[in-house]
Amino acid sequence: MKKLLLIALLLSFVGGLHAQETIMTNTGNIVSPEIANDNTVTFRMFAPNAQKVEIEGNFLPRTRRGGRTAMTKDERGVWSYKTEPLTPEMHTYCYYVDGIRMTDPNNIYMCRDIATYTNYFFIDGELSANYIVRDVPHGTVSKVWYPSPGLEMDARRFTVYTPAGYEEGKKRYPVLYLLHGAGGDENAWSELGRAAQIADNLIAQGKAEPMIIVMPNGNGAQKAVPGEYENSMQKPSFQNRRTMDGAIEKAFPKDVVGYVDSHFRTIADKNHRAISGLSMGGFHTIYISANNPDMFGYIAPMSAAINRQSRNQQQPEIYQNLEEKMVKLFEKKPKLYLISIGKTDFLYQDNVNFRKMLDQHGCKYEYYETDEGHIWANWRKYLNNMLPKLFK
Amino acid sequence: MKKLLLIALLLSFVGGLHAQETIMTNTGNIVSPEIANDNTVTFRMFAPNAQKVEIEGNFLPRTRRGGRTAMTKDERGVWSYKTEPLTPEMHTYCYYVDGIRMTDPNNIYMCRDIATYTNYFFIDGELSANYIVRDVPHGTVSKVWYPSPGLEMDARRFTVYTPAGYEEGKKRYPVLYLLHGAGGDENAWSELGRAAQIADNLIAQGKAEPMIIVMPNGNGAQKAVPGEYENSMQKPSFQNRRTMDGAIEKAFPKDVVGYVDSHFRTIADKNHRAISGLSMGGFHTIYISANNPDMFGYIAPMSAAINRQSRNQQQPEIYQNLEEKMVKLFEKKPKLYLISIGKTDFLYQDNVNFRKMLDQHGCKYEYYETDEGHIWANWRKYLNNMLPKLFK
Repeated sequence: MKKLLLIALLLSFVGGLHAQETIMTNTGNIVSPEIANDNTVTFRMFAPNAQKVEIEGNFLPRTRRGGRTAMTKDERGVWSYKTEPLTPEMHTYCYYVDGIRMTDPNNIYMCRDIATYTNYFFIDGELSANYIVRDVPHGTVSKVWYPSPGLEMDARRFTVYTPAGYEEGKKRYPVLYLLHGAGGDENAWSELGRAAQIADNLIAQGKAEPMIIVMPNGNGAQKAVPGEYENSMQKPSFQNRRTMDGAIEKAFPKDVVGYVDSHFRTIADKNHRAISGLSMGGFHTIYISANNPDMFGYIAPMSAAINRQSRNQQQPEIYQNLEEKMVKLFEKKPKLYLISIGKTDFLYQDNVNFRKMLDQHGCKYEYYETDEGHIWANWRKYLNNMLPKLFK
Repeated sequence: MKKLLLIALLLSFVGGLHAQETIMTNTGNIVSPEIANDNTVTFRMFAPNAQKVEIEGNFLPRTRRGGRTAMTKDERGVWSYKTEPLTPEMHTYCYYVDGIRMTDPNNIYMCRDIATYTNYFFIDGELSANYIVRDVPHGTVSKVWYPSPGLEMDARRFTVYTPAGYEEGKKRYPVLYLLHGAGGDENAWSELGRAAQIADNLIAQGKAEPMIIVMPNGNGAQKAVPGEYENSMQKPSFQNRRTMDGAIEKAFPKDVVGYVDSHFRTIADKNHRAISGLSMGGFHTIYISANNPDMFGYIAPMSAAINRQSRNQQQPEIYQNLEEKMVKLFEKKPKLYLISIGKTDFLYQDNVNFRKMLDQHGCKYEYYETDEGHIWANWRKYLNNMLPKLFK
């Protein structure tokens, strides 16, 4: 009797504390996704009254809208789908329940791209080994506010990774500035890009130098991720941008690099400073480095949106005479100029032309070409490939 | 013709960059939630083929599972629901589409409690004024790893708020240790609890002293939020805890306070150190302070889970002789002992008994009683009430 009472008390306690903000829901007590030893993955969704449940994922045969396929229902009302063995990757998926897109209620791991959340999971293997959190020393990830007079803002935000051990001593570190694409913000590289995990793992393996990684917000129409600054709790839109009119690039050296060098223990010289970015961030990388040839020893545009500046205005000086500026940049012998792009990227031909121009002038760059196109799978791969080349 | 070509190019560019990780979905280009000037709120959901769409929210008449009500469908297939004018608060809601729970695809603002995501939005007003991001100087929020020999772990993680200006100078700051409840982790106070916004706003108004706020992980079965340490990408469960067996409390002074005092610019004495926590964190607050009477000048259990320690074992010394320890604690005259709880909290009577015990010994505490029970709305309120009382 005493034992029963104890159990009853325990249950009432658990029930009570459980009740916090959450209204618990019946998701069928199922596991989803379930990754088997052979890397097949089973997805499940409890929807006893649904007529049709589909799964859409990067690992299914591609259509314009990504692969989508039907799940099958069992007698309990659980819909499921089991894949073939999947390749190592950070995979993404969502469900369609009677046509309505939704994330998997049994998987709390989600990433946001612009205004859309997608679930993710990892298949472990050579390619993805550094994307996964390992039992290694972890760096600190911080959200830091800095003044940006160049964009006429009191405060803008960057994400910064300081390597394990940074808090311990007086040591100074090199800095990588890592820029996001046109739909992104200062959270993109640390979330979709797995930058902290890739850095933690490569540093722990002795393959990359311990470094600070600064991931600023490259959209001049924002101070930070929507919701993190005043009056910004709207739905993010790809259209709400101020990104390729020269302002970001012009403000960058003083506002961002200047702040970082005066507030972090950096080695504040060219050979301990790198800049890289994807898509629009690749475009920013090219122009910021070309206009400041003494600032960065390591420069690495990824899937760069070359020639995609705003055409609505007089071209600012910062976008003029690129060819001439590139020649001057290479005369100053950067330690690394690394161009990365995928074969099916819609920006592929622009990058071919850019390399042709560099070739004509005898500018020596490294080139990393991969399969696939303008996707995060490539940008994680490029970051993982690039970090070991920096500050060596 | 040239103009048409330009438009076509622009569209293909936008489409291309847009395609990053996200597969865009037709959510009907609608706004949800839409907050009118009179604080009525309209929710919308595009689901042309659904038979029934309901909304569940904290602002609807309560049932055991929260309030839930039907939405109505228009000719375009958009379901909507308009509320009465809502009171100032961080409100939460979700949808049920033909019985399937889902978040609002037009609202990217979500918070997680254990394994469940819920959308949120703010109604501005006196109560919620400090929960909302304002145009004031913002502190830095960081995720920091520290060794925890007391829990036999190489690394555990806390969230830390350092106030605006921390990076600028040499100034030292007082520290508040702010502990989460049994279902929480080191993200709970900064996300559900709006701790950074409340601190930013109260400090900017001159009502609270600039302070460091350390929000550790109080679950000894975790190193950090699930997904942030090795082999942890499972669905979080309320059952997967090691929280009230004395280990967290025993390790706290050396592992957490010791690390903070040696790695941050703190004023490392009793009168510049506060501890507070909700529910299980209130329980931790009571025992950590009672066992270390010279450590904290400000002590503030919220909705404290008094007498809820694990009964499966020999009681550790840390839980023994509480009454005697409380008398000694009060003999040392803490500047503040603040007990907060809601009238309908399932822990209310235990807190009545605890106060009775303190009264019998003439221990002078402050008491803050509110409506409602064991909910985040109260804990945000208690934090907002407490910060101005610290370090004065």
